[in-house]
Amino acid sequence: MINIAVLGYGTIGSGVVEVLNTNRESITKRAGNELNVKYVLDRREFPGDPIMEKLVQDINIILDDPEIKIVVEVMGGVEPAFTFVKSALLKGKSVITSNKELVAKHGAELLKIAKEGEINFLFEASVGGGIPIIRPLNQSLTADEIVEITGILNGTTNYVLSKMSEEGLDFETALKNAQEMGYAERDPSADVEGHDSCRKIAILSSLAYGMQVDFEDIYTEGIENITDTDIKYAKAMDARIKLFATSVRGDDDQVYAMVAPMMIKANHPLYSVNDVFNGIFVEGNVIGDVMFYGSGAGKLPTASAVVADVVDAAKHMTKNIWTIWSSKKLVLTDINEVKHRFFIRVPNNLNGVLEEAKALLGEVEEVKAQGVEGEIGLLTCEIREESINEIKKRIPEILSVIRVRF
Amino acid sequence: MINIAVLGYGTIGSGVVEVLNTNRESITKRAGNELNVKYVLDRREFPGDPIMEKLVQDINIILDDPEIKIVVEVMGGVEPAFTFVKSALLKGKSVITSNKELVAKHGAELLKIAKEGEINFLFEASVGGGIPIIRPLNQSLTADEIVEITGILNGTTNYVLSKMSEEGLDFETALKNAQEMGYAERDPSADVEGHDSCRKIAILSSLAYGMQVDFEDIYTEGIENITDTDIKYAKAMDARIKLFATSVRGDDDQVYAMVAPMMIKANHPLYSVNDVFNGIFVEGNVIGDVMFYGSGAGKLPTASAVVADVVDAAKHMTKNIWTIWSSKKLVLTDINEVKHRFFIRVPNNLNGVLEEAKALLGEVEEVKAQGVEGEIGLLTCEIREESINEIKKRIPEILSVIRVRF
Repeated sequence: MINIAVLGYGTIGSGVVEVLNTNRESITKRAGNELNVKYVLDRREFPGDPIMEKLVQDINIILDDPEIKIVVEVMGGVEPAFTFVKSALLKGKSVITSNKELVAKHGAELLKIAKEGEINFLFEASVGGGIPIIRPLNQSLTADEIVEITGILNGTTNYVLSKMSEEGLDFETALKNAQEMGYAERDPSADVEGHDSCRKIAILSSLAYGMQVDFEDIYTEGIENITDTDIKYAKAMDARIKLFATSVRGDDDQVYAMVAPMMIKANHPLYSVNDVFNGIFVEGNVIGDVMFYGSGAGKLPTASAVVADVVDAAKHMTKNIWTIWSSKKLVLTDINEVKHRFFIRVPNNLNGVLEEAKALLGEVEEVKAQGVEGEIGLLTCEIREESINEIKKRIPEILSVIRVRF
Repeated sequence: MINIAVLGYGTIGSGVVEVLNTNRESITKRAGNELNVKYVLDRREFPGDPIMEKLVQDINIILDDPEIKIVVEVMGGVEPAFTFVKSALLKGKSVITSNKELVAKHGAELLKIAKEGEINFLFEASVGGGIPIIRPLNQSLTADEIVEITGILNGTTNYVLSKMSEEGLDFETALKNAQEMGYAERDPSADVEGHDSCRKIAILSSLAYGMQVDFEDIYTEGIENITDTDIKYAKAMDARIKLFATSVRGDDDQVYAMVAPMMIKANHPLYSVNDVFNGIFVEGNVIGDVMFYGSGAGKLPTASAVVADVVDAAKHMTKNIWTIWSSKKLVLTDINEVKHRFFIRVPNNLNGVLEEAKALLGEVEEVKAQGVEGEIGLLTCEIREESINEIKKRIPEILSVIRVRF
């Protein structure tokens, strides 16, 4: 029997306990050992829940108990999670986490401690909920040099954009709808402004390139400025707008990373990733394109990924599963240097504005959307980000700018 | 340095050598050791190819060389591959293979030998080419009871069906096109008749349920009877026809497995898997739906999966990576008992035939396709396979029967 402690009995923590109970038999078989939740750490009380028997409020009870071999951290946030996780690893306990803030900030350091202790620090659930992506990156795509990772990594924003597209809702109404469905928090800013996706692409990029990608360095734009008019233009082009979290390695081995809304067409593997689903597209230099799709959040899918990590830790009680993520910082390409095609909405009823925009943007295709008056869409060739910013400054009448990948 | 022997210098074998050379630096880093191809076994000569220096024609040179720690079998076919692989494992060498016939037939036995020897028998490339699916099933979906695995596992048939759908080609023309593109063999029967998909779903099912699923037990139907008229009806319903390889666990824990053309709509995760791409959909009882997508064949994608397995074997030189696949036979549900919705084409200009069909099929929806005369499509409710077979016997005028998943 292997004893486990679960830190945090919120949605995911209670999901972990539920999954361990529901699939006890097959999990025991796969882990080669029975997995027993000995403690659950939470400040709250849960009257009537059988978990009360295992509830503790002092982390030291867990840290000081030599019977605890695996600690599951599902509290979220950097502190006190970091202190608890680091202490557990230093005490020779393997740690599983679903905590993207913790992994993005301290992943390299915690992996190093785990390696030195011949134990494991695993975090499959920190990106893409239940979708297997961390383990495939670490263990399946090892013959490749990764050229690109692009994900729809946030279910809330994908739901909002899907509803705007399917039902013609404006941003506020779609967001309200997502909140009513329980898909968005009361304060949705971490999702909507792209910060959640940013942490996740920082983790994936660090693993893909084996070096520390600091999330603070990643250019991040949310979906809060996407309007129903933008969606109408996307439809006119048979395109969809998705919040992409992406990192791309250029021919010069320089990597750029960004989170931003992107227009894509049906030939892109992520085009069909709708509603709260997540999808992660990876291009390797020999494997070509692969894509992983599934529930990016939710109690049981996320708990499934956590428990799968627990099983892996149980199978590797005294052997570190090697993960290459050095603490050496990867200096990203200055975002100003990156080129994209852009879709730009410009008023066509203001004297000289459209003409000036066309003169500055070079060759463009005009796009019209049904029912939209007083403006026109322009689809540019590839232009540097810096140039677009200058053009936006010179023509403040520009209504919106969205990057395009087709 | 870890010495490797490659058995077979065909498309995949030469791809393996190429990938090891192309990404030498990153592969060495990830394997923790340099990987050196010491021998290549092939009866043929390759004048001018530097591989000639390493070419041997006698398997015993490889088997008897204690320096060879990993053997890569990419010859295909059951014999002599089975004898070579078994001998290598018994000599304490880990074996990597891309050979679906070998794995479907002897997987359980070879895994057992590997386990007893604390070495590894890995076969990621045997299903889905470069797509990571074997390792995710073994190591990532371990918290779940698998409820369903459904794949588009054969690129040739998917290409043929895609071309029929996109360009309105008939089956023969689309197949000829695939042969010209190098996507189909001169004798395409193993692909077209579904035998290739059958081996692959047998492997996936054995891993998902942990018991031996014999490919001979899997009901297998190919795409050779799909006509351009069937495609017209599919289009009329906004559906596509795909060759599905599927195994489903029912509420009674009974599993059925089959390979057959299936009509699906845009809400199915495999709907967008077109051309030579493969996709594998997995449903677990806690993770929900996940899907894996990529190149299902091709020299470099397949070689990428083989080399990733070599890296994993190199990282586990004296530790068996546990795979649950017992030799105990899983008795599949009699296919006659399985229920599906069916799409059935019936002449409507023959006295009494349509009326008889309707009387036997129960409630149906009528489907009309543009430009198709003298017949009508009927979409049934769920009906047992056995009943459909009886109806087909009683009404030999029925033009076609295709299963439906929507």
